Amino acid sequence: MNNNKRSKLSTVPSSRPIRVGFVGLTSGKSWVAKTHFLAIQQLSSQFQIVALYNPTLKSSLQTIEQLQLKHATGFDSLESFAQYKDIDMIVVSVKVPEHYEVVKNILEHSSQNLNLRYLYVEWALAASVQQAEELYSISQQRANLQTIICLQGRKSPYIVRAKELISEGCIGDINSIEISGNGGWYGYERPMRSPEYLYDIESGVNLISNSFGHTIDVLQYITGSYFQKINAMISNNIPTQFLLDENGKRTKETISKTCPDHLLFQGILENGKVPVSCSFKGGTPVKKLTKNLVIDIHGTKGDLKIEGDAGFVEISNLVLYFYGIKNGNGSSNGTDNNGAAAIKDKEKVTKSPSPSTGTSEEEQTMEVFHLRNYNSVVGNILRIYESIADYHFLGKPESKSSRGPDDLFASTKFDKQGFRFEGFPTFKDAIILHRLIDAVFRSDKEEKTLDVSKIMI
Amino acid sequence: MNNNKRSKLSTVPSSRPIRVGFVGLTSGKSWVAKTHFLAIQQLSSQFQIVALYNPTLKSSLQTIEQLQLKHATGFDSLESFAQYKDIDMIVVSVKVPEHYEVVKNILEHSSQNLNLRYLYVEWALAASVQQAEELYSISQQRANLQTIICLQGRKSPYIVRAKELISEGCIGDINSIEISGNGGWYGYERPMRSPEYLYDIESGVNLISNSFGHTIDVLQYITGSYFQKINAMISNNIPTQFLLDENGKRTKETISKTCPDHLLFQGILENGKVPVSCSFKGGTPVKKLTKNLVIDIHGTKGDLKIEGDAGFVEISNLVLYFYGIKNGNGSSNGTDNNGAAAIKDKEKVTKSPSPSTGTSEEEQTMEVFHLRNYNSVVGNILRIYESIADYHFLGKPESKSSRGPDDLFASTKFDKQGFRFEGFPTFKDAIILHRLIDAVFRSDKEEKTLDVSKIMI
Repeated sequence: MNNNKRSKLSTVPSSRPIRVGFVGLTSGKSWVAKTHFLAIQQLSSQFQIVALYNPTLKSSLQTIEQLQLKHATGFDSLESFAQYKDIDMIVVSVKVPEHYEVVKNILEHSSQNLNLRYLYVEWALAASVQQAEELYSISQQRANLQTIICLQGRKSPYIVRAKELISEGCIGDINSIEISGNGGWYGYERPMRSPEYLYDIESGVNLISNSFGHTIDVLQYITGSYFQKINAMISNNIPTQFLLDENGKRTKETISKTCPDHLLFQGILENGKVPVSCSFKGGTPVKKLTKNLVIDIHGTKGDLKIEGDAGFVEISNLVLYFYGIKNGNGSSNGTDNNGAAAIKDKEKVTKSPSPSTGTSEEEQTMEVFHLRNYNSVVGNILRIYESIADYHFLGKPESKSSRGPDDLFASTKFDKQGFRFEGFPTFKDAIILHRLIDAVFRSDKEEKTLDVSKIMI
Repeated sequence: MNNNKRSKLSTVPSSRPIRVGFVGLTSGKSWVAKTHFLAIQQLSSQFQIVALYNPTLKSSLQTIEQLQLKHATGFDSLESFAQYKDIDMIVVSVKVPEHYEVVKNILEHSSQNLNLRYLYVEWALAASVQQAEELYSISQQRANLQTIICLQGRKSPYIVRAKELISEGCIGDINSIEISGNGGWYGYERPMRSPEYLYDIESGVNLISNSFGHTIDVLQYITGSYFQKINAMISNNIPTQFLLDENGKRTKETISKTCPDHLLFQGILENGKVPVSCSFKGGTPVKKLTKNLVIDIHGTKGDLKIEGDAGFVEISNLVLYFYGIKNGNGSSNGTDNNGAAAIKDKEKVTKSPSPSTGTSEEEQTMEVFHLRNYNSVVGNILRIYESIADYHFLGKPESKSSRGPDDLFASTKFDKQGFRFEGFPTFKDAIILHRLIDAVFRSDKEEKTLDVSKIMI
């Protein structure tokens, strides 16, 4: 299989594009402008921005002008925005602490707006598991509203390729995993302009929800397994940070920080009882001797290593190293590389019979995957939009039945991506991750190893 | 400081060498013959083998002849051996499950033998913490008997150099540590001749006591800190092993295994509250993408990486990578390298002022330490013998006062090495490690994070 193929919709669909309304698209410098907006620009035959909500109308109108959104209407009322009949999809990209209010409002006010089919929210879904559960519960009552959560690391070509290699048996049975990540900014210094909520434990955005959350989601996705039990230790060893001036120079000013700067996490995956060791930290990000993100996956017949320059797997351009069995269990053409994952280096080794590994009849191979010019910040999010378009125009991810592009509203609700290659993560995937993160905090607080096998939906 | 210097006793001492009696030296192929015996051969002016105990006299006499131990007497009674007046030191190197009986017997029968000054036992001290506590307790009643435990990893030049760099502030304050190790044989296959007790959880010799035990001892030694709290998860995911024939080929025979093949360990060091993440496994030892032993130590001003080809830090020839501040805090000539640790590669970087790291006025340097021909199996043990000789002929490790070589019996008992550069680990060091390992098993069993701050003596 090649699961790294781009969208099937290479030509312009004959029906109209998905009409998108944004919450939080404010200017050319905002996160959403540098990610979602650029992704949509590249998919202009499938998506069209038709509405913006921001707290002031002025801000929306300025953005419409600045980004030349000629089809877009500005809103300063979330109620009217959610009721706008010409919207197919709403994208929420505001600060996480605001998610709960915004998403709840949208869900309530759009209840009679049957045209609204998609609700796409940035990770984390909410600032706490309780808020997230409530939003999930409300969304479940909406039969025709498809939720999407932006756990875009799952769409990274490196992650998809790693999942492919594992699912084809190219490293045999996984027996051990180690992860270490450095989530840069949760450290000794804070840029003057950096928003306060990033350093506030109450905001729900921190090293654990963010660096760890995205990474462990990706790990579960790659391995096709949730956790059976976990233990965590959380440290705030840097309760005071130095403020940096606009040139990045340390000032004499300090500021307190309540969010953690270190997470120790270990656990056993349900599937194969695989032990996973994980260390995430803020602090000094530049390292000479190791990468700021390393995921080592060891199997009975080979190994995978994923490396990145920062502990943010979802937005980093990665390198994937693979040493193992060519063509896996032989059931598919696994190492076919016509897809997006380019191979820079490929070394094939026909090993002499090696009794001690028990792989004497299997051809071993080594590969390094890296896409030099891959823009992972935009690219992974773009691949979620592509999956939405495929779902919308071609039908549900799991059904391969041919459905015409006119079949706009025939697709029924997509439950969760789970460990599927196709599709996109949904609120259900988000809830499972929220519950795991909640267990991480509880394990630390209660000083216990916790059974988490019941957190799945 | 240069703590990697060899023994001060470069010339032959004017007094007689330390007279050594061995328990377990049987032939040229035994572990003790390939390690302790070779070490003593290189230190023949300081040590002389004068007695052998083995269960049969024949075995001892054969060994005396084979190894040309012309000063040695053979014993088949542990009682007579322990009472032999011409012995200064007894070395116990038998299977760990036998330690308790042998050491207890020696301690009891030698109680009136005031000539016996040193008792040197291989790690682990005993098969269980209870047995070890009892041996320690008995040994404590002997005012003039100096105990030594063979935690020889502490004497590895790489470990000493790493400790030196840290203690001189060359990587600033440590803020995170990750360890992963692969203890080869606790895996899918077992050589036919491999002794059964190595795979039996009851024997007290396993991945945890051995691979993890030596490594975590070294880690505590390097960082100068014990643990405050720990959590562990122990797995026996390979309860059945394939037997290998004499050529290393898999047979169809399988055999059950009760010892663990995986340990997840995480904890917080007392000193600086440093989070430590640790994963030890058996299984497939040969890896292409990472080393079988990796210790990453991250500090505010630099990093250390220790790599080895196997998860046995105490017998592996290592490579030490250092990136950090030259001369540390300037209080000593830390990067002086006249000692044993050769520098293969040395890159000095005078960095342009870098406000974001706060090290603008400090010269950064990168070094790779590796002794290509260092025989770590013999060398680390030899360095313990050197320390014993220094202690014996020159006085207690912590006192630098000049004491003549004639002052043979003036040195009083050396309590524990703890985190000192000089000296050697004692039974007290062994007990602290035994208690930590016991806590590891309890943490797994009770599914708790345990406070271990009280296990020190």
